[in-house]
Amino acid sequence: MPRQTQIGLMSHAELVSEHETQTANYAKLETEKLTLDLTRGKPSPEQLDLSLELLTLPGTEFRDAAGTDLRNYGGQQGLPELRAIFGELLGIPVANLLAGNNSSLELMHEVLTFSLLYGTADSARRWVDEPVVKFLCPSPGYDRHFAMTQALGIEMIPIEIGPEGPDVHAIAAAVAADPQIKGLWAVPNYANPTGVTFSEDIVRELVSMPAAAPDFRLFWDNAYAVHPLTDTTEPSLDVLGLAATAGNPNRPFVFASTSKITFAGSGVSFLGGSTANLDWYLKHAAKKSIGPDKINHLRHVKFFGDADGVRAHMQKHRAILEPKFALVLRILEDRLGASKIASWTEPKGGYFISLDVLEGTAARVVALAKAAGIALTPAGSAFPYGKDPEDKNIRIAPSFPPLGDLEKAMDGLATCVLLAATEKLLDK
Amino acid sequence: MPRQTQIGLMSHAELVSEHETQTANYAKLETEKLTLDLTRGKPSPEQLDLSLELLTLPGTEFRDAAGTDLRNYGGQQGLPELRAIFGELLGIPVANLLAGNNSSLELMHEVLTFSLLYGTADSARRWVDEPVVKFLCPSPGYDRHFAMTQALGIEMIPIEIGPEGPDVHAIAAAVAADPQIKGLWAVPNYANPTGVTFSEDIVRELVSMPAAAPDFRLFWDNAYAVHPLTDTTEPSLDVLGLAATAGNPNRPFVFASTSKITFAGSGVSFLGGSTANLDWYLKHAAKKSIGPDKINHLRHVKFFGDADGVRAHMQKHRAILEPKFALVLRILEDRLGASKIASWTEPKGGYFISLDVLEGTAARVVALAKAAGIALTPAGSAFPYGKDPEDKNIRIAPSFPPLGDLEKAMDGLATCVLLAATEKLLDK
Repeated sequence: MPRQTQIGLMSHAELVSEHETQTANYAKLETEKLTLDLTRGKPSPEQLDLSLELLTLPGTEFRDAAGTDLRNYGGQQGLPELRAIFGELLGIPVANLLAGNNSSLELMHEVLTFSLLYGTADSARRWVDEPVVKFLCPSPGYDRHFAMTQALGIEMIPIEIGPEGPDVHAIAAAVAADPQIKGLWAVPNYANPTGVTFSEDIVRELVSMPAAAPDFRLFWDNAYAVHPLTDTTEPSLDVLGLAATAGNPNRPFVFASTSKITFAGSGVSFLGGSTANLDWYLKHAAKKSIGPDKINHLRHVKFFGDADGVRAHMQKHRAILEPKFALVLRILEDRLGASKIASWTEPKGGYFISLDVLEGTAARVVALAKAAGIALTPAGSAFPYGKDPEDKNIRIAPSFPPLGDLEKAMDGLATCVLLAATEKLLDK
Repeated sequence: MPRQTQIGLMSHAELVSEHETQTANYAKLETEKLTLDLTRGKPSPEQLDLSLELLTLPGTEFRDAAGTDLRNYGGQQGLPELRAIFGELLGIPVANLLAGNNSSLELMHEVLTFSLLYGTADSARRWVDEPVVKFLCPSPGYDRHFAMTQALGIEMIPIEIGPEGPDVHAIAAAVAADPQIKGLWAVPNYANPTGVTFSEDIVRELVSMPAAAPDFRLFWDNAYAVHPLTDTTEPSLDVLGLAATAGNPNRPFVFASTSKITFAGSGVSFLGGSTANLDWYLKHAAKKSIGPDKINHLRHVKFFGDADGVRAHMQKHRAILEPKFALVLRILEDRLGASKIASWTEPKGGYFISLDVLEGTAARVVALAKAAGIALTPAGSAFPYGKDPEDKNIRIAPSFPPLGDLEKAMDGLATCVLLAATEKLLDK
């Protein structure tokens, strides 16, 4: 039975009693010897099975519509037919969209390393020759963005993210004042981990705000463009067109992939940008490779057919994911709703639920869960340098575990949240 | 009919007559309106057809021998079964060999960019923080190595390459004296474009010579390890073992791929190194990708079966390539042998024939050929900065064109060589 008391209103005696209850619950949890994992946004085997046909594709064909033999070297921009399908879905003209290998993270890393070692198309010098390079990081955000940025020696500045997107006033002030701010990380649709989709006003602000650095860039990671959990898919705004209209055509680099559409490890990735940005990218990319795996591009074209094929395919993913998200939300409400010590997002798409627990207890919750066999992403990992200033955010990834495991893991997590909260309030 | 006169011994009148003959030959060549291409070492469609089975593999399977689902994220080191097959062929223990995506050039670029941005496992500082970074470049060598090195701002120092490998005395003297020399490019087996296989003595010297830079690295591009054109395959020497024995375990980075084994654009790549080097690589690579395309690894395992499967497959390539190489060598001998103004390699493996024409005429030959519709790699491209000090080297790539085209192209090329030589000798 869910407890129906608001913890903040409890008397000391009630709090002690609640603490004893959760201590007992936790002791019971420990006896279950769980090994459950809520860490990563990985598709489940059932989701991967939706794309089994890829294992025998492309079949007998190995040419594109123009007759080019896709088995050989070349074709650095990727297969035009594949770029047309995802161009439609992402709202990007084919000419402004490249297709790459199996990882959009790799494309982000390339754009960063090329900027560091060569400078961008608008840079006065290589970024390694700057006294310091800074990136704005809406947080909580994607831990791999921040880990990459930190590894490359780029200074990260956290920016708050609200229900309509990141705090554009804070961003505008920082970008206008500091020419060392060269980039902003953004997941515009169903963001990791908040599920937020940026409003059109916010997108317009981001592409048009004056920047002290002529080479200020939006790293626009549209990872969940076609990943709704409801009947309505939020549209991917034409960020390239809006940026061009605002006079900043080279500001956005758009990234996407099929990692959460087909096979997570064997999909295809996309890079969108202005002509100048893509020319810049291709010039440097030509030094490192003679082109992406175009047979895998063809494999995906054969599998999807067209953009509607992708949309239909994503509805099958939704059918698997929606009950998992619903289960997580139900347990959070049942176990934590009345306590008022936690809040969480109710995403309409994407892969994550962002849970805020009692301030100052997230690390303790994660440690308690870990000791009970429930793996969570380390507390703070959705923040620059892994530092959650309020130590309250936990990212929940419901996609991979089966429903039964997910239920156990979430129930155990709720116990950890309540135990940590009562510990904190009792100053234990 | 081949002319049987040594051009260097001709009288002025004979030379004028020869020039007139070749001018007439060239005029005839121009009327043929050829569009032939000897530029790149690309497999022919017939060679690519040898791997058609890949288009429907891996079939129904998607797990490795340990039961891991290869469709999902992870497995950064690549599929163990694939690494075992190529470990045997390359003479590298599985633990010291990683499998990557479709381009070994990309792996080279990563090792370089990681060294620039992070420093190697033995570096005192990042290479971008060095006053200058220099690489030794045995030449003629692989143009893409040099283009990448130049793009990254690394200074290139040419080193002569003889029939047993590069000039180790020059290398040893340079490496011992200059701590800014951080690397040496090497294609140890059937080198591009000379066809030379390094002798064991030279390999031992390279791994054991004292180096002023503790982070001196051999970029060991074993691109043609299993690509013989005769009954005997030159063995791939155990460069990692020899380096470890010599006390320099971290000196070699080994690269290889199936680009000229299966599909040039859709193969798999390999990175070999000491444990410290691979740990270093994996640490930085983890920031850019959640692992390579392991389904493509499995696809290749299913296709080959084992190392003998690769060896048998390479004999099919040889059956296609050997007649092309024989044809090129026959035409060179027929048209240029007696003239004594040209010499060329007779490779026992690999993808290229290296042609030396009369000193100071290579650029003219390439220009004449281009005007007659025969595309060649730009003169000098096999040298650092594209500068052939003697302007005499031309790389011939016989693999792609059908035999008929190859014959026309080579015959035309021979005309250009003779025409340019007589022009030069007549000071025209």
